[in-house]
Amino acid sequence: MNRRDFTLSCLGTLAAASLGGVAPQALAAGASGQRPAANSLPAGTKASTSGKPHIAFVLYEGMTALDLIGPAEVLAGEQFDVDFVWYDKEVVYAESRANKRLGLMPTATFAEIEQTNILCVPGTSNPYKQLERTEMIDWVARIGAKADWVTSVCTGSFILGAAGLLKGYKATSHWGVLQDLRYFGAEPVVDRVVHDRNRVTGAGVTSGIDFGLLLLSLLTDEQTARGKQLVLEYDPHPPFSSGSPKLASPALLEAVRGGYMDYLQAVAPNSRSQLQALASNLGIKHP
Amino acid sequence: MNRRDFTLSCLGTLAAASLGGVAPQALAAGASGQRPAANSLPAGTKASTSGKPHIAFVLYEGMTALDLIGPAEVLAGEQFDVDFVWYDKEVVYAESRANKRLGLMPTATFAEIEQTNILCVPGTSNPYKQLERTEMIDWVARIGAKADWVTSVCTGSFILGAAGLLKGYKATSHWGVLQDLRYFGAEPVVDRVVHDRNRVTGAGVTSGIDFGLLLLSLLTDEQTARGKQLVLEYDPHPPFSSGSPKLASPALLEAVRGGYMDYLQAVAPNSRSQLQALASNLGIKHP
Repeated sequence: MNRRDFTLSCLGTLAAASLGGVAPQALAAGASGQRPAANSLPAGTKASTSGKPHIAFVLYEGMTALDLIGPAEVLAGEQFDVDFVWYDKEVVYAESRANKRLGLMPTATFAEIEQTNILCVPGTSNPYKQLERTEMIDWVARIGAKADWVTSVCTGSFILGAAGLLKGYKATSHWGVLQDLRYFGAEPVVDRVVHDRNRVTGAGVTSGIDFGLLLLSLLTDEQTARGKQLVLEYDPHPPFSSGSPKLASPALLEAVRGGYMDYLQAVAPNSRSQLQALASNLGIKHP
Repeated sequence: MNRRDFTLSCLGTLAAASLGGVAPQALAAGASGQRPAANSLPAGTKASTSGKPHIAFVLYEGMTALDLIGPAEVLAGEQFDVDFVWYDKEVVYAESRANKRLGLMPTATFAEIEQTNILCVPGTSNPYKQLERTEMIDWVARIGAKADWVTSVCTGSFILGAAGLLKGYKATSHWGVLQDLRYFGAEPVVDRVVHDRNRVTGAGVTSGIDFGLLLLSLLTDEQTARGKQLVLEYDPHPPFSSGSPKLASPALLEAVRGGYMDYLQAVAPNSRSQLQALASNLGIKHP
């Protein structure tokens, strides 16, 4: 192993010596026969300008920042061409928290990205609201249909689902809303990361890091992913053990679940009928 | 437990019913006798405008985004008043990765924040470069000296150290540079999160999540932190086991460490003499 073969983060961004070797392996693994390999993307598409596999992270108002930054930190590096995509290049505010909101800057617009190798959609507390964003969902549907990998973290899977990209696939989401994936024709799976053909979905928020490492190994190789894990010092030792419904006490689970249900009722009272309408559009019988 | 007592993220931002109870407990735990409690901050300081404990995350060009967003996602919520602070309110670009950089928007300027309850500094791949940013370090020193909690993630501890805030404290940092904390008069500790009096420091990048949960429990209570862990679904299952020097294979460790040393030599050739000069300024004998 060459000591320069790692792209470091927090510990330095190094040029990987042999970048060319990454792309064919990455795309062969995920692509169905019809999908274009990175080096065969039509000239003029955003993804082809650098010659590297292109990753498009979707930004949107109200997304959960850590859903995005977890995998972005794992996947961003010399071997990929990464964009953060939104309607325009104005600041996008992540989820509102108290009186302050974190603003993130897009690097490309939906109009600029006609194709990508890896599509990744982060989640949000209120996934039902996103289902009304038909322009974003249309773009996700169009780009996702020809992407080599179609991925999400947390409730980003709702956006993939609404775009019709999870029909017939196993997928996951945040535990609080996982079962609603059935409305999109997906098979909900209780797991931190779910990989079914060229779909890779992560569970709630922090699972984006586990998701990112698995996806990186699929796009490159296991040793590269292990190296990135070491760079990111991902040897987690949570001070408490309550990070999933099966670990939390019944009282804690009820408090968090109940609080979320109250919240959803307040912000998305029509979520059930929205989902039913979407399912109907996708030709899915009411689950 | 009231079901509304949780501030959700990805699963909704709920108003915590009894916010007032948080501040005194939080600040009693961390403050030395001289430090002001949140409710006694002088009028006119940024921190006092909302009546909630104030958290100041320092933004700076070249920082590692996940160092910031990990703890920010854990700590941001209805019970705190959170700012992201930089010289001005123009976009700040996180670490450069290939040809794209993620831009983050500050919510406050150094000049606007005269005092904070909780200071948190994220890290970067090139912590030695930050040591030249005397204006930022002077602000960190001034604010940190009167903060209730002085904290960092990853190599953010170098900035605290350069500001003289770790002298005589146990602290941690990314494994790749941990031992250099001695130059600041700190005692380097190999641990994911280190809590010594009112200093709390996290190790590399992803440790910011463990750090955030521990800090949240210190600022509020264990049950609140457990609830946030469940909301963020922090039940990590890394697909590989190579997240620390003791877990990585010798070949992987050598490759990553060697690559970083090459990188540092390229970007910070004078780091050793810089550290020696700082140590001398802080009255610390060359470690």
